[in-house]
Amino acid sequence: MDKPYVVGIDIGGQTAKIGLVDARGNVLTQTAIVSNDTDDYKVFIKNLCDAVTKLVNKEYSMSQVRGIGIGAPNANFYKGTIENTVNLTWGGNGKLIIPFAEEMSKIIKLPVKLTNDANAAALGEMTYGVARGMKDFIMITLGTGVGSGIIVNGNLLYGHDANAGELGHVTMVRQNGRLCGCGKTGCLEAYCSATGVARTAREMLETSDRKSLLRNIPPESISSKDVFEAANQGDELAKEIFDFTGTMLGAALADFVAFSSPEAFVLFGGLTRSGDFIMKPVVDSLNRNVMPRWKNKIKVLFSQLKESDAAILGASALAWEV
Amino acid sequence: MDKPYVVGIDIGGQTAKIGLVDARGNVLTQTAIVSNDTDDYKVFIKNLCDAVTKLVNKEYSMSQVRGIGIGAPNANFYKGTIENTVNLTWGGNGKLIIPFAEEMSKIIKLPVKLTNDANAAALGEMTYGVARGMKDFIMITLGTGVGSGIIVNGNLLYGHDANAGELGHVTMVRQNGRLCGCGKTGCLEAYCSATGVARTAREMLETSDRKSLLRNIPPESISSKDVFEAANQGDELAKEIFDFTGTMLGAALADFVAFSSPEAFVLFGGLTRSGDFIMKPVVDSLNRNVMPRWKNKIKVLFSQLKESDAAILGASALAWEV
Repeated sequence: MDKPYVVGIDIGGQTAKIGLVDARGNVLTQTAIVSNDTDDYKVFIKNLCDAVTKLVNKEYSMSQVRGIGIGAPNANFYKGTIENTVNLTWGGNGKLIIPFAEEMSKIIKLPVKLTNDANAAALGEMTYGVARGMKDFIMITLGTGVGSGIIVNGNLLYGHDANAGELGHVTMVRQNGRLCGCGKTGCLEAYCSATGVARTAREMLETSDRKSLLRNIPPESISSKDVFEAANQGDELAKEIFDFTGTMLGAALADFVAFSSPEAFVLFGGLTRSGDFIMKPVVDSLNRNVMPRWKNKIKVLFSQLKESDAAILGASALAWEV
Repeated sequence: MDKPYVVGIDIGGQTAKIGLVDARGNVLTQTAIVSNDTDDYKVFIKNLCDAVTKLVNKEYSMSQVRGIGIGAPNANFYKGTIENTVNLTWGGNGKLIIPFAEEMSKIIKLPVKLTNDANAAALGEMTYGVARGMKDFIMITLGTGVGSGIIVNGNLLYGHDANAGELGHVTMVRQNGRLCGCGKTGCLEAYCSATGVARTAREMLETSDRKSLLRNIPPESISSKDVFEAANQGDELAKEIFDFTGTMLGAALADFVAFSSPEAFVLFGGLTRSGDFIMKPVVDSLNRNVMPRWKNKIKVLFSQLKESDAAILGASALAWEV
């Protein structure tokens, strides 16, 4: 292969991480630049191109790079655009459609592809991770929100408008559900994200007077990590919080099985650090809620990508397809 | 095109309908044979081949036929098999995997493809119907049960095991839900099928003493058609039954949008004869329950295929792909 490498870029609100990646998923070299020091996307793209070129040329050569894959908020894969985002200083306050791939490609003279973070994670898992060889699986990212990337017959499911895979926003609680950041109520994300776990903790503490290590923490600053640590010390209430969370997530996964009949779910992100506390109720609930034909047949796996590399790897996976 | 026609076959528990179809979706000639007069699938396949050959050769020629598409219960598209069905006398009482496509193809010397009824309906709609030109849409069949065929990027979504698209069995009522034929409780199908509508009617009549034309019918024999006729005569309770049904169906569709972001839903089957009584609450509820980005953007359409031809057309659509 005369072009053995790809570049993966993860654009976030504060920084953009850049890595050079080989076909086995080794991040050969990486760097980061700030992403919030300009309100002009052209300036940011120029800075990004400079940083990529500098990084690659230090020990490798741009002529060895096959293409560039980018994970970014509000990215539209079909159009290569970043659309109406409020999370980036150069996003035009939600009122701009940025032809990101085209502009960057013009400068850096390489194919550039964009997708959102959860889709990138799914591609990363299929290309380098625990889903290697799978053609049908669903990636669920359990971080501040709940994201998803759906692989169908070896390809990402983008849907009519490239916005498919918003599984964090299926409705799990149809009456008096929690308000979600998306404006709806009762969304999966409002319960099964890291912030959802913290909300559950506060609710459970408020509505009972049971003993719990979590009472030593001011309610408003309880995090999902605190809940994990308490569970780890045998705290019953903390364990129940994970049971509640995992049971709901498993029920949601059962509905997703009815949709696309995946071989596996791959769970990724902060909450997965809670290990069996979350995995066990997820698997139990999934198998209680699927149609009989699928009982005990759908794998639920944790991602095997190193969390620090995963965003770069996921984005880079896009570039093998150019 | 030297092979301008395809054969579509719809295998049901009592009869198998056979039609010769052109590329515009005209059923040129059709017939039917009984499907429950033998317990030996080889006999049935032989009878079917004879009937196809006889039908085609009357006015056309087998040499003009490109291939054969079949819609059948428990059909596995990947393997061309009918698996473990209890709905066919020659199905081995649910304990047989029948290599249907292979056996039939051997006799009739043409490619044979199988899929289930709802998938066939989706293909029919994409090939000849209201979804022509669409690459992402979801077919929902509202008959005795609730079936679905999901088109993603121009292809049927089959999933890991060819069983994807069981949207009638997502859980809509998580507590004290109705028992569904699949063994689960709270499934969409238990509420939004024709039989679900009849159940809702009985429940509403039992739990109130409101006036209704439906009280003139013995409860156990109320059908969805009765409810439609009552609604048509201005019966308030009957209209509420459709509101309840459509509202739940719309909420389910909103979750499906989060999954695959379709351009449209196509509704098919007995319940669609109720027209606006069902369509209006579906559309209202869909738009109330989707994420803001999709509000008022997803079409909900009734199938335009003639109901008497639809099963043959759907099955025949499979054969253009051979």
